[in-house]
Amino acid sequence: MLNFDFYSPARIIFGKGSENRIGELLKPHASKVLVHYGGGSIKRSGLYDRVIASLQENGLAFVELGGVLPNPRLSLVHEGIALCKKEKVDLILAAGGGSTIDSAKAIAMGVYYEGDVWDLYEHNREIEKALPVATILTIPAAGSESSGDTVITNEQKQLKYGYGSPRLRPLLSIMNPELFFTLPKAQVAAGVADMMSHVFERYFTNTTHTDLTDGLCETVLRTLMKNAPIVLEDPQNYEAWCELGFGGTVAHNGLVGMGREQDWACHVMEHELSAIYDVTHGTGLAVLTPGWMEYVHGDNPNMFVQFAVNVMGVQGSYRDPEALIQEGIDRLRRFYSRMGLPATLTELGIPGDRLEEMAKKATSAAFGSENPIGGLKKLYWQDVLEIYKRVK
Amino acid sequence: MLNFDFYSPARIIFGKGSENRIGELLKPHASKVLVHYGGGSIKRSGLYDRVIASLQENGLAFVELGGVLPNPRLSLVHEGIALCKKEKVDLILAAGGGSTIDSAKAIAMGVYYEGDVWDLYEHNREIEKALPVATILTIPAAGSESSGDTVITNEQKQLKYGYGSPRLRPLLSIMNPELFFTLPKAQVAAGVADMMSHVFERYFTNTTHTDLTDGLCETVLRTLMKNAPIVLEDPQNYEAWCELGFGGTVAHNGLVGMGREQDWACHVMEHELSAIYDVTHGTGLAVLTPGWMEYVHGDNPNMFVQFAVNVMGVQGSYRDPEALIQEGIDRLRRFYSRMGLPATLTELGIPGDRLEEMAKKATSAAFGSENPIGGLKKLYWQDVLEIYKRVK
Repeated sequence: MLNFDFYSPARIIFGKGSENRIGELLKPHASKVLVHYGGGSIKRSGLYDRVIASLQENGLAFVELGGVLPNPRLSLVHEGIALCKKEKVDLILAAGGGSTIDSAKAIAMGVYYEGDVWDLYEHNREIEKALPVATILTIPAAGSESSGDTVITNEQKQLKYGYGSPRLRPLLSIMNPELFFTLPKAQVAAGVADMMSHVFERYFTNTTHTDLTDGLCETVLRTLMKNAPIVLEDPQNYEAWCELGFGGTVAHNGLVGMGREQDWACHVMEHELSAIYDVTHGTGLAVLTPGWMEYVHGDNPNMFVQFAVNVMGVQGSYRDPEALIQEGIDRLRRFYSRMGLPATLTELGIPGDRLEEMAKKATSAAFGSENPIGGLKKLYWQDVLEIYKRVK
Repeated sequence: MLNFDFYSPARIIFGKGSENRIGELLKPHASKVLVHYGGGSIKRSGLYDRVIASLQENGLAFVELGGVLPNPRLSLVHEGIALCKKEKVDLILAAGGGSTIDSAKAIAMGVYYEGDVWDLYEHNREIEKALPVATILTIPAAGSESSGDTVITNEQKQLKYGYGSPRLRPLLSIMNPELFFTLPKAQVAAGVADMMSHVFERYFTNTTHTDLTDGLCETVLRTLMKNAPIVLEDPQNYEAWCELGFGGTVAHNGLVGMGREQDWACHVMEHELSAIYDVTHGTGLAVLTPGWMEYVHGDNPNMFVQFAVNVMGVQGSYRDPEALIQEGIDRLRRFYSRMGLPATLTELGIPGDRLEEMAKKATSAAFGSENPIGGLKKLYWQDVLEIYKRVK
């Protein structure tokens, strides 16, 4: 086990009706709140009204900024920063999914940064300060409700970069699984693929002696894969949604990756797809992950045998590890397919003409000095290109 | 799954050499530190000198208070409160095991409480404020390094009570598994029994639809049971100690019990043993737990079948659940025995003449109005007496 530093202070208030407590919960921490949200589904569902009522009952002033898109844009972040400064906002409440929360985090740190907040993403500069962020989660997927991470798309530069700081961990996050009942099936499936990937990126490692976190990763994965098909068939199944919601938080609050070298190649490769083609993050991950597994498994076959047996439930002869591994990957593909997720770039609507460009961007080879990605196996741009081609 | 509120902000700094960072880590939070410790093993091991050097290098003033005993005493807590007030201490650093940390938490809240801090334990009053507590863990067992709980013994009244508040969660905890290498075998075994019990108390529940937390509990238990015999045979096995140390934290930081009704009867029953006979908490738990399982399993046999199969690895006919359950409990007894733990109150040195008194104290029947204990099965004093007799 490697040395580690675990810090996950976001308070999770979980369950039916929890969103009605938002005003009471924020009162000790804020006087003027920016309510940040997406395309307006929170207005149609009535969530917006309940949130505003709770803020008002508790004497909290607020301003609002809607319009966050999937793959949240830098331009709206700039708008939010200006608004917070002008209105002297002291807390941002993100009501939405990962995009809204990531956008809120960008605004939260941008308020205290003198230059363009994009610098922080591009040059990974350390921040000293950020406004507190609270969240009401409407889509379990990104894990942003407990993480210190944010991913923003610079639409002008066609770049999608992530940034992380312990100062961006939300103060508190409300999770009422009833809010997930009305999600479109495609969004559910993409969200599940994203949550699973957050575990995969931590699970696949060359670090040894990781009994506890191996087991934690495996149980989160099994829980997600058991309950995802249930909500797809029965969108109002509260109990199954509880498992997915809580599972998505545990997948990405940091715990299951402590003390182990992590991978994250699939996330980096996917960000190139989203940056240019604006695909849903989770669908991109579902396409790339099995291809990545096939390409890298030879570097650590025992890890992939363990995945096949402990996660995918494969039984068979350990004297033929390749067969176990292939069956594990095939089962994962079948799971994604059952969830209605695409299996190829073509199905995602991505043509094959910019694969090399994306591979070179993913490894920064396009920007002068190449920086290979991935922990389990280091991938150079030629490797990334191979993986893109494999799932074409 | 039940509604829940999860908040576990203690930062865990884990690994080799981490104790040497204590001064640097505390500097932003303190100017004068109370260094609180036990019988002086930290002086013999050199840990004390390293800690003091790190505090001094970072310009932190300090005072010290040693002498914490297992089952930490109220009298020393009173002394610590007076010292902190007199010296204007602004942070307490507990260097030791659960007893030292629990004593530090008692002092931390006592500093701001006008009356006798014991009131808080006896009447469970809510606190507004406490000094920040940091820890350097030397015994993985109590989980107090991340929890908001403290247990103190009032030696005059022969009472041992617990108290919990989110304000008592440590600011940060240092965990270097190398510090565990020199622990006596008996202490290791008792610590493991305590950590396992923290999971059991959360695991055994009548709440349904708890896939994720079931799995988390089971993987923590399997990890502890795999690695405990390794360190008993090979006390310098760093990797196995990592699993136990990290496992003990996850066992008690709250996560694995979220959304489920918890039990805690064994802990309450054990506190009566320690309060009168001053036995080590973990050994008391090892004696009581299998007896409790046998007494209560009929109320939820499926939960105990799951325990036998998923935790204890029992294979057999599900058409004879009683046999599966009994084999699971027998395996647990054999595990405790392999760890050198006692199986009966007699082996613990506890005579049979005060069992009824303890049973009546455990359920508060001794104090006028009875308050049954336990979540999975409500236990009245007669039930507790039955369990005490069963393990006599």
